[in-house]
Amino acid sequence: MTSSVGIVIPELIAFETALDLERGRSLPRYDLMVETYGTLDADKNNAVLVCHALSGDHHAAGYHDTESNKPGWWDHYIGPGKCIDTDLFFVVSLNNLGGCSGSTGPLSINPVTGKAYGPDFPEITILDWVHAQARLADHLGIEKFAAIVGGSLGGMQALQWSITYPDRLAAALIIAATPRLTAQNIAFNEVARQAIIRDPNFFDGNYADYDVIPASGVSLARMVGHITYLSDIAMGKKFGRSLPRDDHDANGVNFAVEQYLRYQGQQFSGHFDANTYILMTRALDYFDPTKNGLTTLPNVLKSTVCKFLILSFTTDWRFSPSRSEEIVDALIQADKQVSYTRLESAHGHDAFLIPDATYERIFKAFMNRIHLDLRGIQ
Amino acid sequence: MTSSVGIVIPELIAFETALDLERGRSLPRYDLMVETYGTLDADKNNAVLVCHALSGDHHAAGYHDTESNKPGWWDHYIGPGKCIDTDLFFVVSLNNLGGCSGSTGPLSINPVTGKAYGPDFPEITILDWVHAQARLADHLGIEKFAAIVGGSLGGMQALQWSITYPDRLAAALIIAATPRLTAQNIAFNEVARQAIIRDPNFFDGNYADYDVIPASGVSLARMVGHITYLSDIAMGKKFGRSLPRDDHDANGVNFAVEQYLRYQGQQFSGHFDANTYILMTRALDYFDPTKNGLTTLPNVLKSTVCKFLILSFTTDWRFSPSRSEEIVDALIQADKQVSYTRLESAHGHDAFLIPDATYERIFKAFMNRIHLDLRGIQ
Repeated sequence: MTSSVGIVIPELIAFETALDLERGRSLPRYDLMVETYGTLDADKNNAVLVCHALSGDHHAAGYHDTESNKPGWWDHYIGPGKCIDTDLFFVVSLNNLGGCSGSTGPLSINPVTGKAYGPDFPEITILDWVHAQARLADHLGIEKFAAIVGGSLGGMQALQWSITYPDRLAAALIIAATPRLTAQNIAFNEVARQAIIRDPNFFDGNYADYDVIPASGVSLARMVGHITYLSDIAMGKKFGRSLPRDDHDANGVNFAVEQYLRYQGQQFSGHFDANTYILMTRALDYFDPTKNGLTTLPNVLKSTVCKFLILSFTTDWRFSPSRSEEIVDALIQADKQVSYTRLESAHGHDAFLIPDATYERIFKAFMNRIHLDLRGIQ
Repeated sequence: MTSSVGIVIPELIAFETALDLERGRSLPRYDLMVETYGTLDADKNNAVLVCHALSGDHHAAGYHDTESNKPGWWDHYIGPGKCIDTDLFFVVSLNNLGGCSGSTGPLSINPVTGKAYGPDFPEITILDWVHAQARLADHLGIEKFAAIVGGSLGGMQALQWSITYPDRLAAALIIAATPRLTAQNIAFNEVARQAIIRDPNFFDGNYADYDVIPASGVSLARMVGHITYLSDIAMGKKFGRSLPRDDHDANGVNFAVEQYLRYQGQQFSGHFDANTYILMTRALDYFDPTKNGLTTLPNVLKSTVCKFLILSFTTDWRFSPSRSEEIVDALIQADKQVSYTRLESAHGHDAFLIPDATYERIFKAFMNRIHLDLRGIQ
């Protein structure tokens, strides 16, 4: 396939040293499911870490088999000649700790009890992910990333990296992110969690013991989430007030947007673990580099040394441009190298996943500049 | 109590003539629960109809007993000397058809079956409400209202009145409303409905047969709704990212906003009927004076003859100012008398219920002008 990384095979990498977690507990051991694209240079300085968002996974580019017609979630932006050019960069993409796509998470066996963790899986924070990713870098022999890149929750990981391991990345690309969630953001996450928790098949998170999944609750949670990913404009363009084929069908569906949301929710609930969804939303809620106002963002960012590119999208109301601009302002106050673009888009928060010529041009130019930096070219 | 209408006694008024409904069915008979405040003039021209929003009822002002410290939902705006001055106007407020506060609705006995309607209660539209309200006016001997006033869904009733019974109102005050819902509005309503429908205690709406209520689903629906009533700013001011007394309490509550939403949801689910909630959100979804684009709003509004005051609030993102401005623009195109103010407020959609000096001043001036008009004073 033209400009695709082609068939990729994920690798499960085991980490046998315990990881102490920010909120107090520790994981005795863990696995990370990882994909890489491109080739690591002999001096190992061309690695790019891609961090995924709430429902993402390690499969960011290419295909898992020749039959598959579903590429990785950021395939448009990762590949030969693409924004993250796999002819130039060695790309590392992983399923985060607590995930449900192969890395150690609630579905994994707790070595202490011999049973799946389920709801007893420890709370994970963005800082924990960053530590786990740093160990993955150690394992791969990567001392310093050329760039760490992510959208939404992924961008928050890139931001945390710049703070926690300032010397281990040359650049951070933070897209459609926020320095911390607002009360409204938390409220939407809480509704999603409550939808799951109130599903009678949830059993306090022990649904595996009953051989069921809280599909209805997860589906509802996804429906709520989905509304916040799309702009009012995008939804209007896509559905307007149009009716599905049969007005008021047997399932009580009246408008096309209802049909779409139900379908999306149902699809998602079939493959995404409920305990992971709760864990991921909690990680979002708790993220706050200022430690609940104990310090300020410019203060926290003083120690950073990488270049920053911050991107936001005009119709994103989940993490609006003004939230990205808080990061930009703080970086400027901290006297750091930062570029920022507020991109015109009708696609809301989802815009970071969607092809767009201007977005691509800026993304690619930044990555090319990083590559020139690596080669010492001014 | 100063400037209160004092103790009010709601009255149940029976209508024994069948009402044919817009979506095809009919109600053989029905009751409306009504409150009135102030005195109807001898020539019966000083009546003001107040229309309620999704979860409102007939109890708009005053108190139901001397023990009660909970006034009607718009008590700040209705009373002696207030915006809707009960020294000047005779105010009529009712629980709409399909409601759950005394008017005929899903909780009422279907005279045909001798059983409560439950989910078999016919679908009700805003046009149906307007017809039922017109019959109430007939019953009270009111040929023409001095004004019809409402916020949100209430404003949409006022708009429909101006179209359906142009000669029966002198003025329409339409606050924080919209000429029709967007796909995003419908999507939020759909999530709320799904939360209710998926509650195992819902039993396809027949929960009364099982002596249960789908409290969990209704509570979740209210949580979703509540987020859309408040602005991001208002939520931020009220809760920020503050934690409740015990970080991570026994119920898994982490942030104050979570605690608040759960409490609000729980309170609501104890007194609001699930079938009514579904019915009310459907009425919202279906409202569209242009009949799904068959005609245009200016065209529809051509037949109106009343004065209009349209009010919106800057941080209202449920029905944003631009939606009010669609009504204003259409009225201007139709060459009608319209005043419009976009009010500064931090309170989001809820602003229409909240005391605010500028809002009060404009509201009161409009109502006073109407009173002068009644007396023939230029």
